[in-house]
Amino acid sequence: MIINGANLNLLGTREVEIYGTASLKQVENLCRKKAESMQWSIDFRQSNAEGSLIDMVQEAQNKCNALIINPAAYAHTSIALRDALLNCSISKIEVHISNTNKREKFRHNSITAAAVDGVIIGCGINGYILALEAIALMQKNS
Amino acid sequence: MIINGANLNLLGTREVEIYGTASLKQVENLCRKKAESMQWSIDFRQSNAEGSLIDMVQEAQNKCNALIINPAAYAHTSIALRDALLNCSISKIEVHISNTNKREKFRHNSITAAAVDGVIIGCGINGYILALEAIALMQKNS
Amino acid sequence: MIINGANLNLLGTREVEIYGTASLKQVENLCRKKAESMQWSIDFRQSNAEGSLIDMVQEAQNKCNALIINPAAYAHTSIALRDALLNCSISKIEVHISNTNKREKFRHNSITAAAVDGVIIGCGINGYILALEAIALMQKNS
Amino acid sequence: MIINGANLNLLGTREVEIYGTASLKQVENLCRKKAESMQWSIDFRQSNAEGSLIDMVQEAQNKCNALIINPAAYAHTSIALRDALLNCSISKIEVHISNTNKREKFRHNSITAAAVDGVIIGCGINGYILALEAIALMQKNS
Amino acid sequence: MIINGANLNLLGTREVEIYGTASLKQVENLCRKKAESMQWSIDFRQSNAEGSLIDMVQEAQNKCNALIINPAAYAHTSIALRDALLNCSISKIEVHISNTNKREKFRHNSITAAAVDGVIIGCGINGYILALEAIALMQKNS
Amino acid sequence: MIINGANLNLLGTREVEIYGTASLKQVENLCRKKAESMQWSIDFRQSNAEGSLIDMVQEAQNKCNALIINPAAYAHTSIALRDALLNCSISKIEVHISNTNKREKFRHNSITAAAVDGVIIGCGINGYILALEAIALMQKNS
Amino acid sequence: MIINGANLNLLGTREVEIYGTASLKQVENLCRKKAESMQWSIDFRQSNAEGSLIDMVQEAQNKCNALIINPAAYAHTSIALRDALLNCSISKIEVHISNTNKREKFRHNSITAAAVDGVIIGCGINGYILALEAIALMQKNS
Amino acid sequence: MIINGANLNLLGTREVEIYGTASLKQVENLCRKKAESMQWSIDFRQSNAEGSLIDMVQEAQNKCNALIINPAAYAHTSIALRDALLNCSISKIEVHISNTNKREKFRHNSITAAAVDGVIIGCGINGYILALEAIALMQKNS
Amino acid sequence: MIINGANLNLLGTREVEIYGTASLKQVENLCRKKAESMQWSIDFRQSNAEGSLIDMVQEAQNKCNALIINPAAYAHTSIALRDALLNCSISKIEVHISNTNKREKFRHNSITAAAVDGVIIGCGINGYILALEAIALMQKNS
Amino acid sequence: MIINGANLNLLGTREVEIYGTASLKQVENLCRKKAESMQWSIDFRQSNAEGSLIDMVQEAQNKCNALIINPAAYAHTSIALRDALLNCSISKIEVHISNTNKREKFRHNSITAAAVDGVIIGCGINGYILALEAIALMQKNS
Amino acid sequence: MIINGANLNLLGTREVEIYGTASLKQVENLCRKKAESMQWSIDFRQSNAEGSLIDMVQEAQNKCNALIINPAAYAHTSIALRDALLNCSISKIEVHISNTNKREKFRHNSITAAAVDGVIIGCGINGYILALEAIALMQKNS
Amino acid sequence: MIINGANLNLLGTREVEIYGTASLKQVENLCRKKAESMQWSIDFRQSNAEGSLIDMVQEAQNKCNALIINPAAYAHTSIALRDALLNCSISKIEVHISNTNKREKFRHNSITAAAVDGVIIGCGINGYILALEAIALMQKNS
Repeated sequence: MIINGANLNLLGTREVEIYGTASLKQVENLCRKKAESMQWSIDFRQSNAEGSLIDMVQEAQNKCNALIINPAAYAHTSIALRDALLNCSISKIEVHISNTNKREKFRHNSITAAAVDGVIIGCGINGYILALEAIALMQKNS
Repeated sequence: MIINGANLNLLGTREVEIYGTASLKQVENLCRKKAESMQWSIDFRQSNAEGSLIDMVQEAQNKCNALIINPAAYAHTSIALRDALLNCSISKIEVHISNTNKREKFRHNSITAAAVDGVIIGCGINGYILALEAIALMQKNS
Repeated sequence: MIINGANLNLLGTREVEIYGTASLKQVENLCRKKAESMQWSIDFRQSNAEGSLIDMVQEAQNKCNALIINPAAYAHTSIALRDALLNCSISKIEVHISNTNKREKFRHNSITAAAVDGVIIGCGINGYILALEAIALMQKNS
Repeated sequence: MIINGANLNLLGTREVEIYGTASLKQVENLCRKKAESMQWSIDFRQSNAEGSLIDMVQEAQNKCNALIINPAAYAHTSIALRDALLNCSISKIEVHISNTNKREKFRHNSITAAAVDGVIIGCGINGYILALEAIALMQKNS
Repeated sequence: MIINGANLNLLGTREVEIYGTASLKQVENLCRKKAESMQWSIDFRQSNAEGSLIDMVQEAQNKCNALIINPAAYAHTSIALRDALLNCSISKIEVHISNTNKREKFRHNSITAAAVDGVIIGCGINGYILALEAIALMQKNS
Repeated sequence: MIINGANLNLLGTREVEIYGTASLKQVENLCRKKAESMQWSIDFRQSNAEGSLIDMVQEAQNKCNALIINPAAYAHTSIALRDALLNCSISKIEVHISNTNKREKFRHNSITAAAVDGVIIGCGINGYILALEAIALMQKNS
Repeated sequence: MIINGANLNLLGTREVEIYGTASLKQVENLCRKKAESMQWSIDFRQSNAEGSLIDMVQEAQNKCNALIINPAAYAHTSIALRDALLNCSISKIEVHISNTNKREKFRHNSITAAAVDGVIIGCGINGYILALEAIALMQKNS
Repeated sequence: MIINGANLNLLGTREVEIYGTASLKQVENLCRKKAESMQWSIDFRQSNAEGSLIDMVQEAQNKCNALIINPAAYAHTSIALRDALLNCSISKIEVHISNTNKREKFRHNSITAAAVDGVIIGCGINGYILALEAIALMQKNS
Repeated sequence: MIINGANLNLLGTREVEIYGTASLKQVENLCRKKAESMQWSIDFRQSNAEGSLIDMVQEAQNKCNALIINPAAYAHTSIALRDALLNCSISKIEVHISNTNKREKFRHNSITAAAVDGVIIGCGINGYILALEAIALMQKNS
Repeated sequence: MIINGANLNLLGTREVEIYGTASLKQVENLCRKKAESMQWSIDFRQSNAEGSLIDMVQEAQNKCNALIINPAAYAHTSIALRDALLNCSISKIEVHISNTNKREKFRHNSITAAAVDGVIIGCGINGYILALEAIALMQKNS
Repeated sequence: MIINGANLNLLGTREVEIYGTASLKQVENLCRKKAESMQWSIDFRQSNAEGSLIDMVQEAQNKCNALIINPAAYAHTSIALRDALLNCSISKIEVHISNTNKREKFRHNSITAAAVDGVIIGCGINGYILALEAIALMQKNS
Repeated sequence: MIINGANLNLLGTREVEIYGTASLKQVENLCRKKAESMQWSIDFRQSNAEGSLIDMVQEAQNKCNALIINPAAYAHTSIALRDALLNCSISKIEVHISNTNKREKFRHNSITAAAVDGVIIGCGINGYILALEAIALMQKNS
């Protein structure tokens, strides 16, 4: 499962100098193509609501082998999402499209990051591809 | 160039529950193999000295197309290394083997992270492989 | 569009010494009357859910000329709402009915305030009327 | 009304060394049995969404004599929930299953705790039973 | 009385991308025209000295029905001005031309804002017009 | 053993709007009656001295099955009392009569709370009854 | 010399529940009467301007044997006034009419207090009488 | 009653450049002489123990008309002593011999000072005389 | 123009171990002599009032080619002076006679320093000479 | 004199993984044996009360040549004990059995440590032996 | 001796909008020319290593009459360099080419600045010339 | 191995009122003599470079039975050195010659102290002797 948080439905239209011009649909296609090449199927979602993201994480625990999450702004404020991730025992990678360390001070720390396995920051939409690779590498090793 | 910071020469012997059992030599071999498959050559280095790491970053700017750096502890204390990275205009990825967000509070922020393009945290030694991929993806896009 | 955040559906029944006795319905009527006099139509909404408020802001961007938002408590906690407002390029005014500077310390700063054009605080429900005026004045000037 | 916040639907499966092995259903049964013995009827709910919890608190004000709430993670982040509780004038007890003072620093303070009458922490799922007792004692006294 | 704080005499010449090109004289004229239409007379002043601003606030208490103040930088440093405002029992509105929340951190909080009735931020020089409206609305209600 | 900290000997005469009108003697009687109904005997004590409270906690460890402590002000300042509680392996409940979260900031955190099993706050003198119940429930479970 | 800071000219009209009903004129008379009984002459002044207060302190150094100062709000913000006092080598007592420790947090510390000999807080207008006594006692001892 | 806190029994031998050379006995005599001239009797005490100081404050409430307390170091650490003072409704003056504002940062704030009527700092042992005067003036006024 | 802030009129008499024994008149002469040798004329001023310093900075903008300012204590507290300097587009050098980094913590940061071109600290009254040189060098380069 | 603070009477039974299994009696014997070999006599004490520890330090000043103190938890909270130590001019060594730097953040700083000559941390009960040696070495040198 | 810290070897190529286009070689020549005119010889060095900078400062103490140091990033992090400077008793001036007060918050304070005589900030490479002048003026005065 | 950090090569010449007059050579001799009496051989080193200290710690792990380190200023800034010590499993004692708790605030905490077994502070150069004893005692016990 690939979960996208608040405002990511606007990708490509929103602050393009930070997030680039690709739409979320294009990101989804990119992920699908990559997943296909790895013979995986993916469930690609987005929500602006903290509660829905928590529901999705809980669902992933039951239905999926791994989870990629871009919590967007909720990374910096949601202890509830962190708890949902802590409770989810599958492989988990957090992705941020922009390099959050270059932006406002309140984006430098991620509350959710301590509840996932790995974090990929600032690689643009390629971060999703790298997250898929990361999971493949993790599962090969274990 | 792939630069490794303080104490990484002890990889595989040091706090193995955090860093795993692979030695730095094995990481180097892993990187070389991956680089070979991408038809790149790599210059793999390590130093415990902040000043030497700065020298290496300056050298990379002149000799290499891209830079992967694992500053280890210096990520959290070295403004000088951050300045060296800021001055270096090639593609730059920062790697941390462990998920620093799960460890002591003083490891949650990276001073150097704002001076690189992307950051890959907590993916173990696979982080180096992912960093090589990340650079390849960045250079394909630009 | 006029968006009202958490607990504002209880206006007039809730802490009346702070918020006054007018109900949200009365505020809506006041706004409609004023808007009519300005020959504008308004879409007046309320939600207790952060995610729904973000959805509304995204919708406003597509459907409206201007946005008035009283985020209530979310002003002090929601980076996600701030991001939604940043992405919305129409005229935006934030309203707070009470003078938040006279209340608990954690209400003195608004995270969302940096993502709107103007902020009107402590003018009671008249703040909505003033916000409508503010937008009229902004649009006359530009 | 007994309201349960984020991730409590996973009770019994989640971090059992902290929360124990009883499921939320078992907690509900325990509460129903206790309530029956007190000749009360209870409305037992759970949601992962901050907005829904606020809706429930507002509903409780109209329909119930007393409110027991375990806000889980939202206790530490939600000013909006605090405002909903402040506006609710029935008897209110906040329950935390684990002793939050023994856990991460960000769980030591509860934003919502100042908006309820009493708080019961660290007594496990018995905290719900004690909360029911507390309300009975409060109502006997007043 | 309309009181203008430090450096506002330079309006129109100073940081025009933040404050716009209108001079303080033009603001005064705008206010006079608006006041006339409301059949009010206004006393429009400016000073760079904290002590003089306090004197003016004290004078306003004796001579005027309402006070509009743009304390400029003193909003962020002057407890003495706050005390003067606290002691002044007429209607009081604080105005800031720019959206102070978008600027340096030390401009995000206003010490004086807790000592006035309402605050209008970021509406440009229209903020003064809105403040006059706000007072009219306040006095109609009371 | 039930231990009462600083100034609790004045209960009923002191800040009655916060602590109520019952005297410590009445609390003791209430506890004794409850304990009797549970067929327990209790040792009810009070001291204004930090050192004596520590002595009592050490004594409780040797002589009692469970400990209820209302450390009053020492909850917020005494690491020594926390250490005594840490060292005491019987069941331990901390009680605060008032809801400390509604009072001064320095009463929001309890240093000792991390050294007990459960904490009961803001339930008035009923907190002692609930604490006795809590211990009974704890001991039934274990 | 007895120097009174910002807003003290309004004494007796301003926040009387904090400062009492005596006017500054009455305070002056009280001081004159006391001084007379001690065979001292006094120079009693007030200003709302930080710069004027500094001028007065500098003048006191040349013309007087001792200085009593109530800096009011400037006690909490003025390093310049502190420097003036540091440079003034006569006996110096700081007076605050109200008990500043019971008020807002930003009134708990006095920047100027470290630059005087003694400080008298919360004794009402009697604080001035006590300050005169304090100086008499200081000069008798030295 | 005049209560002296920790280490004041060593007065005159301890850090004489800060506290002077008078012994506590001499201070007592000074106070007795002054009290005699006012036709008051005094009960002069000292203890190094926080709990004993609390006992004394409680006793003062029952036996005396007024209380002078020099809590020494406990002024900066004891919430329990603050609570005892809050509960004591007679006239209360806090005295510090040295000017605590000139010393270590942790001596700049007094926790107990908000629980007394007035505070006299830095006037040496004359502070006790002034405190007696302060009480006389307070009682004349009321 | 050379502007001197609070208490600098006392130079040579005030804390001579920090500021030296030269009077402000001597500094003025030193500057005049140096300026003459550079064929410049200077306007040398001092004020203890924040507002007057702002007036002077505004005047300098209209009448002078360059500005040297020693804001003294106002460097650490005055946002208003910072704003005046920001608005002044001529060459600007800030001078501090003493090395402020060796003194109290609150003198380590200068609010105004970010609004000038260069800062010269701790060079004694020679700092003024160096500031004149600095301006000459700046103007030669541009 | 060797003074032991709060809860050290439980040594050997308390948190043995931190403090080891030796009882305080065994520590005393160890110290006596060492002291004997140095031809010193020792007075070995323990108290849980802050006030008693202060009394002991004052007594040591009069009766002993040197003082070894393990203030335990009071090291982190007691300014009063610090003051007692400051007043005591004999040789003073502070001992902590465990390495406090490895434990909770609030144990990293010792308030009392600045009032003794040397500090020995984390050497287990051998710390007492080393403290005796340290005093011997200090006295040989002076 | 003139010592240059981390990354200054890249001067002229690095962030030229901040540091200008002159290379370190040009700075050296500028300094040599100036020094010649003063009949001084200079030893001009640079290192990226904190330890080497310390070695140089120690060497300067033995071989030179004065020291000019631009510690670059180490100014903000190196207590070790501060200690080396404290130990060096010759005339010392710290230079920063850019106005560090206009840059990131972590560049506003210099740890080393308290260990030198004077500091020259923001005057570009002219800062070195001014530092040479400053030393000449210092040595003429002493 | 005995490792000495930055500036310790200047011992005896540097701030002698803090560090005493013994040179590092004398310390070495003292240690050698003591070691000899214990039939140990020692390897005594010093470096001003953080990286070299890390190298030495790594070397000690391979070659020695125990490590004594005086990191000097690096104790307060070097996470890299802390990591090196964490990785070194032999007996480790940290020594500070001066009592760092009596000095600047930034010397009160040691980052490295949590990575060694014991810490000896403020015992002058005798601290090295005590450290040797401490190791002997540790090894006897284990």
